[in-house]
Amino acid sequence: MTFRKPGQKIGFLGGGQLARMMALRAHELGLEVHILCESAEEPAVQVSSHWHQGHPENISDLEKFLKVVDVATCESEFYRGHLLRQASDTTGISLFPSPEIIQELQDRWTQKNSFLDSDLPTAPFLQINDEGDFERACENFKHKVVFKKRHGGYDGYGTFILRSKKEKAKVHDLLKKNNYNVIAEAFVSFDRELACTFVRDQHKNIFVFPLVETRQTDSRCDWVTGPARHPAWAKMKSQIEKWLHKKNYVGAIAFEFFGVEKKILINESAPRVHNSGHYSQQALEHDQFKLHVCAVAGLALPEENHLLSPAFVMVNLLGQSDQPLQFPVKLKGHLHWYGKEKNRRGRKMGHLNFLGKDSKTLLKMALQERKRIKL
Amino acid sequence: MTFRKPGQKIGFLGGGQLARMMALRAHELGLEVHILCESAEEPAVQVSSHWHQGHPENISDLEKFLKVVDVATCESEFYRGHLLRQASDTTGISLFPSPEIIQELQDRWTQKNSFLDSDLPTAPFLQINDEGDFERACENFKHKVVFKKRHGGYDGYGTFILRSKKEKAKVHDLLKKNNYNVIAEAFVSFDRELACTFVRDQHKNIFVFPLVETRQTDSRCDWVTGPARHPAWAKMKSQIEKWLHKKNYVGAIAFEFFGVEKKILINESAPRVHNSGHYSQQALEHDQFKLHVCAVAGLALPEENHLLSPAFVMVNLLGQSDQPLQFPVKLKGHLHWYGKEKNRRGRKMGHLNFLGKDSKTLLKMALQERKRIKL
Repeated sequence: MTFRKPGQKIGFLGGGQLARMMALRAHELGLEVHILCESAEEPAVQVSSHWHQGHPENISDLEKFLKVVDVATCESEFYRGHLLRQASDTTGISLFPSPEIIQELQDRWTQKNSFLDSDLPTAPFLQINDEGDFERACENFKHKVVFKKRHGGYDGYGTFILRSKKEKAKVHDLLKKNNYNVIAEAFVSFDRELACTFVRDQHKNIFVFPLVETRQTDSRCDWVTGPARHPAWAKMKSQIEKWLHKKNYVGAIAFEFFGVEKKILINESAPRVHNSGHYSQQALEHDQFKLHVCAVAGLALPEENHLLSPAFVMVNLLGQSDQPLQFPVKLKGHLHWYGKEKNRRGRKMGHLNFLGKDSKTLLKMALQERKRIKL
Repeated sequence: MTFRKPGQKIGFLGGGQLARMMALRAHELGLEVHILCESAEEPAVQVSSHWHQGHPENISDLEKFLKVVDVATCESEFYRGHLLRQASDTTGISLFPSPEIIQELQDRWTQKNSFLDSDLPTAPFLQINDEGDFERACENFKHKVVFKKRHGGYDGYGTFILRSKKEKAKVHDLLKKNNYNVIAEAFVSFDRELACTFVRDQHKNIFVFPLVETRQTDSRCDWVTGPARHPAWAKMKSQIEKWLHKKNYVGAIAFEFFGVEKKILINESAPRVHNSGHYSQQALEHDQFKLHVCAVAGLALPEENHLLSPAFVMVNLLGQSDQPLQFPVKLKGHLHWYGKEKNRRGRKMGHLNFLGKDSKTLLKMALQERKRIKL
């Protein structure tokens, strides 16, 4: 039996809401929480007495930070993998998930190939580096193509959609202006979007959170309901578990899927806790933040982690203006607020979780309740 | 409808584990957390970026602190009420629960009288200021008497038990040495000890947590199981609710009871979150810490707050030595660790919560699991 002492120091690279919510769980487990980020205004800084000013992609800040902690994890999948590896090698401090897997997944081209190599179903794709590649993609995918930047795209940023031949010139101009460096995917006409968070610990245990349905509005997560069902889920789930073992993956990882009739395709994956898993703060005994922290810190995942409610809903609170937000004093559901000082249109400011018997009724209520907040 | 802006500043007087667990919930709700305590090593300091060094009973520290926050609350019921009132009056910043009710309850004499005035059943008691009072109490209560310090007693400190006439001289010596200033209570031969936490908000809503059974070992809380039943509970509950309205009480308040066959007597009460309510972190949708923070910050208590499990257990993790503690990497239940650097015999270091179907089976398992921790 392996023992650990409390007071182990965990480092979070990045100071946003994901780091904040991981930090809150790390405190419960008795870990000493350290945050590396640039500004004292960032959400995670407020919830710990150990803030280290610096940027996770500045190698000297990063190495200085790693020397202070026992283990570390990233809140963003976009920190360049080779820098993370260099800092980890120099300091001898482990990062979970590993810099190698972060590097593999942060490039959409290598991410898609990683899935393809393991027979994980995903939409057909091509690499686009010049006009010839662009033409080939248009032909191959019959002028219904999604172009995605290989690096750093999120919430719709870095995504260009070609819906018909008419739009070809316009989309090509955009890609050319951005020096290509995108992948092209066959446009998937999906029935609904699904998502699931997996967590694997250092002892090879995997916990699979429930499959959920997600809705994006203006390319941003709007709401999540669950648990969802899909006839192809059992197979997909076991294939992903195999892939996680093959990669010796450690930590939380979120998968987003397209549900197309009886098929599921992987849309994309992020090697971290994820907005589509925030519902777990209320709906399960142990949430994604806690399980990720356990995995990173070398603790075993809990043997049991029951769903606490037949249905659940999460609705995001996205800024609608630059005016300060206001809440009604009496609010239904479970509020999670990120402590961002400035409101801004489209900015993720917080979320609300709800538990109930039936996800349709619950979603209706949740969306009504959200309207009562002056966002 | 009243609105509030996020970022309201809440102050916690005291930096122990109760402040720490309240602070974690306050962060979720988007409140800015400020801590007033003496040492940077204290549990609550680690979970916030706003630590103010000082003592809650130093009037200048206290006033300086209150000027920084919008509202404040105490983690201990022992801070002298008149100082709290003075600081609140000078700064215009409200403290919840009010200094007046804290003052009334922190003196066992006025606490017992407050209950008596509202016909809340409690063991017969007398004020003891000299040898004559002592003799009267021994006669009245037939040499089975519990003497308790009027101020500052907790976890068995400040309690002296007279079990028979033989012990009279010894107990009297102790009381005399301490200048009396105690109350005497008829010794209650109880079947079991029970407890319950109530929370009342500023909008007059009350939430009553489940009744629980508690076990003290060496005068310290050892474990809690629930939900418990008792034939006299419904009446007691409604009497306490009336008392809370009468006092215009705001915040959490814990009651400890003696269960004597078909009767319940109030043992004592603490105007704060309480060790007997820690189970609520897992067993209910919203726990005692969150509800207390809501009440203090002027938010309405949630309309619904369901029990998430048919049974629950909390076991305390009390230090057994001055050696560093060690946890197995694989541990059942929900760990809550207070971040205290030094282990010490009898010191509250953390606790474990468990959910399950049957509290007897669960308690057995929980106590076994606790043995696996090197305390």
